[in-house]
Amino acid sequence: MWYESNGKDTDVVISTRIRLARNLADKPFPGKLYSEDATDIIEKTKKALSGEKLDFINVFSAEPLYNTILLEDHLISSELISSKTPCGVFVGENLSIMVNEEDHLRLQCVLSGYDLEKAYNMVSSLDSRLESHLPYAFSEKYGYLTKCPTNAGTGMRASVMLHLPALTISENINTIITAVNKLGVTVRGMYGENSNANAYIYQVSNQVTLGISEEETLKKLADVVDMIIEKERHICKTLYDNSPTLFKDKVFRAFGTLANSYSMSTEEFMNLIPYVKMGICTGLFENISASDINRLIITMQPAHVTKIIGNDNFRKRDEMRASLLRDFFKEKR
Amino acid sequence: MWYESNGKDTDVVISTRIRLARNLADKPFPGKLYSEDATDIIEKTKKALSGEKLDFINVFSAEPLYNTILLEDHLISSELISSKTPCGVFVGENLSIMVNEEDHLRLQCVLSGYDLEKAYNMVSSLDSRLESHLPYAFSEKYGYLTKCPTNAGTGMRASVMLHLPALTISENINTIITAVNKLGVTVRGMYGENSNANAYIYQVSNQVTLGISEEETLKKLADVVDMIIEKERHICKTLYDNSPTLFKDKVFRAFGTLANSYSMSTEEFMNLIPYVKMGICTGLFENISASDINRLIITMQPAHVTKIIGNDNFRKRDEMRASLLRDFFKEKR
Repeated sequence: MWYESNGKDTDVVISTRIRLARNLADKPFPGKLYSEDATDIIEKTKKALSGEKLDFINVFSAEPLYNTILLEDHLISSELISSKTPCGVFVGENLSIMVNEEDHLRLQCVLSGYDLEKAYNMVSSLDSRLESHLPYAFSEKYGYLTKCPTNAGTGMRASVMLHLPALTISENINTIITAVNKLGVTVRGMYGENSNANAYIYQVSNQVTLGISEEETLKKLADVVDMIIEKERHICKTLYDNSPTLFKDKVFRAFGTLANSYSMSTEEFMNLIPYVKMGICTGLFENISASDINRLIITMQPAHVTKIIGNDNFRKRDEMRASLLRDFFKEKR
Repeated sequence: MWYESNGKDTDVVISTRIRLARNLADKPFPGKLYSEDATDIIEKTKKALSGEKLDFINVFSAEPLYNTILLEDHLISSELISSKTPCGVFVGENLSIMVNEEDHLRLQCVLSGYDLEKAYNMVSSLDSRLESHLPYAFSEKYGYLTKCPTNAGTGMRASVMLHLPALTISENINTIITAVNKLGVTVRGMYGENSNANAYIYQVSNQVTLGISEEETLKKLADVVDMIIEKERHICKTLYDNSPTLFKDKVFRAFGTLANSYSMSTEEFMNLIPYVKMGICTGLFENISASDINRLIITMQPAHVTKIIGNDNFRKRDEMRASLLRDFFKEKR
C-alpha cells in the first residue's frame, strides 16, 4: 500500500494524490447508466488493464468493512460505496482506478509525502496506456468530458494532504485558508467536501480544470503547498522557541498517553498525535520518523483496527488501538 | 529522615506517628508564657537531651522555607511556625520534640509504614529518659496535665497516615469514616484538623486520652487501621478484577503523564500518584515499590522542591518536580 513507503517532506505532507476523471465515449454517464452498461464498462476496463499490476475489488458486493478500509486508504470515495449500480476499484501499490463513481473512470496515483511531478507522471502514463484501449469522451473545445462540468478540461484533481498541527494550534490556519482560496486552490478536511474536517489534517487541491494545462495547475498548487509547508515549519519552530518547556510538556504528555494507555479512541488519537508530530519536527524524538506518524494516521483509523480484531466491538477496537500504539511507542523515548 | 526507610504495609500506610504531650510542672502553659520562660524551657530541654542524637532547630527564627519543609515532613505543626514566643524542634531520624507549641513538649516518633508498637516503644523510651531530667506536670488523678483538657491523661496521640486511593475512588471512604468515628477513632486529612483534606490521604488517630491506658488506645486504633488496610486492599483488587483494562488504562495513563511531563503541579501529582499506587498494589509495576511512592508523596511537596531550585519561582518549581519525576519513573515500566 502507498503509505508503506516513505517520501519527501513527510513532516508536513502525508500524501500527494492526482486523479484524472475519464469517461467512455459510447456510454451514458453514471447515474443514467443501466446495470448492463455499468458491468460492460468494468469488463472493458479489466481487459484494457490486463497488463497492469492492479487487482479489481468489487466494491458493489464487497463486505462493508473492506470498503471502509479502502475509504480510509483514500482509494475510493463514500459515493462509490453507496453506488446503486455495479462498480469497483482497481488497486495497485500507488495506482488505482475507481470505476462507475461520478465518472466512468477515475484514475488515481497516491504517493507518501510530497511529489506532484512523480504522481502526475505515474497517473498520466497509466492514462495513456488505458486511452490506447478505451475510447475516451473528449472534445477538442472542452478537453476531457465529465459528468460534472467542474471537472471537464484536464479532468485532473491534484490534492496534497497536509498535517498542520502548528498552524492549527497557533490559530493561523484560517488566515491561510482564506488567502489560498483566492489563488484558485481549495483547502478542505481529510475526506473531502462532505466530511467533518479533522482538526489537524487538510487537503489542498486545485479548483479549476478548464482552460488551464496540467502543468500550470500543478505549478500553481505547488506554489501554495510550498508556502504552507514553509509556514507550518516556521510556526512549529517558533512555538518551540517561544516556550520550550511548555512545548516539551505538551509533546511528551501526548507521547506518555499514547505509549501507555489501554484504551484509545480514534478521536483522542487524532488529538494527541499532532503534538508528537511537532516533537519530531523539532528534533525531540530520535527514534520516530514523520513517515511513521503518517502511517499511524492511516492505520489507526476504525476500519483498519476493526480488521485486526475481527469484529466490530467498539470497546475492543479502542483497546486494540491502544495496544498497537503501546507496541509502536515502546522505548521510543 | 524517617521516610528514607521502608516499613510494613507501605502499600496502604505512609507513616505511623505517636506523640506525647508533656509539660513542665514549674512553668505556665504556652500562651501564658513569657519569652524568658519559653527560652528557659528550650535550654532545660537541650540540657536534658544532651546525650540524644537530636539536633535543635530554632523554628522561631528559622527561614520560612525550612519551617515549611519540617511541616511537610510532619515534624512540626503550623501552630509552632506561627508561635509568638521562642520555640523550636529537636529532630532526629525518627524522634522529634516540639518545644513550646500547644504544650511545653511534644515528643514524637514517626516511622515509615505501619508499626504502632515500635513507635510507642521508641517515644516512650525517650519520654522516660527525659522525665528523669525534667519535672513533668503530672496528677495522680488525671495523669499528664496538658494545656487542652482533651489531651490530658496519657497525653498520647497515635496517628496512622493512610493512602487510600481505592476506597476514595470507589466512594467507600465516607461510610468508613462514619463507622470509625463511632469507635473512638478520628479520621482526618493529611495535615490534621485545620487542613484541606487531601483527596486520597487520611490520618487515623485516637480520640480519647483520659481514662484509658496507652496499650488499650493502641489496640483500639490498631483494630480500626487493620480493618481499613484490609478494605483498601480488597477494594483495590476488586476494582482491578471488575475491569482490568479500564484499571490498567487509568494506572498507566497516570504513569505516562508522571514519567513524561515537563511541568507538574503538586495538585496534579497528588491526583495522579494514587493510580500508580493502585498499580503497584495489583502487581502492575515490578520496579517501583509502595515505599518509593510514599517517599515521593513527601518529597514532591512544594517546600521540598523549592529547596532544590533555590528560589520560590512557582513555574520553575513545577518544572523541577516534573524533572525529578521523569528521572524517577524513567524505565520503570
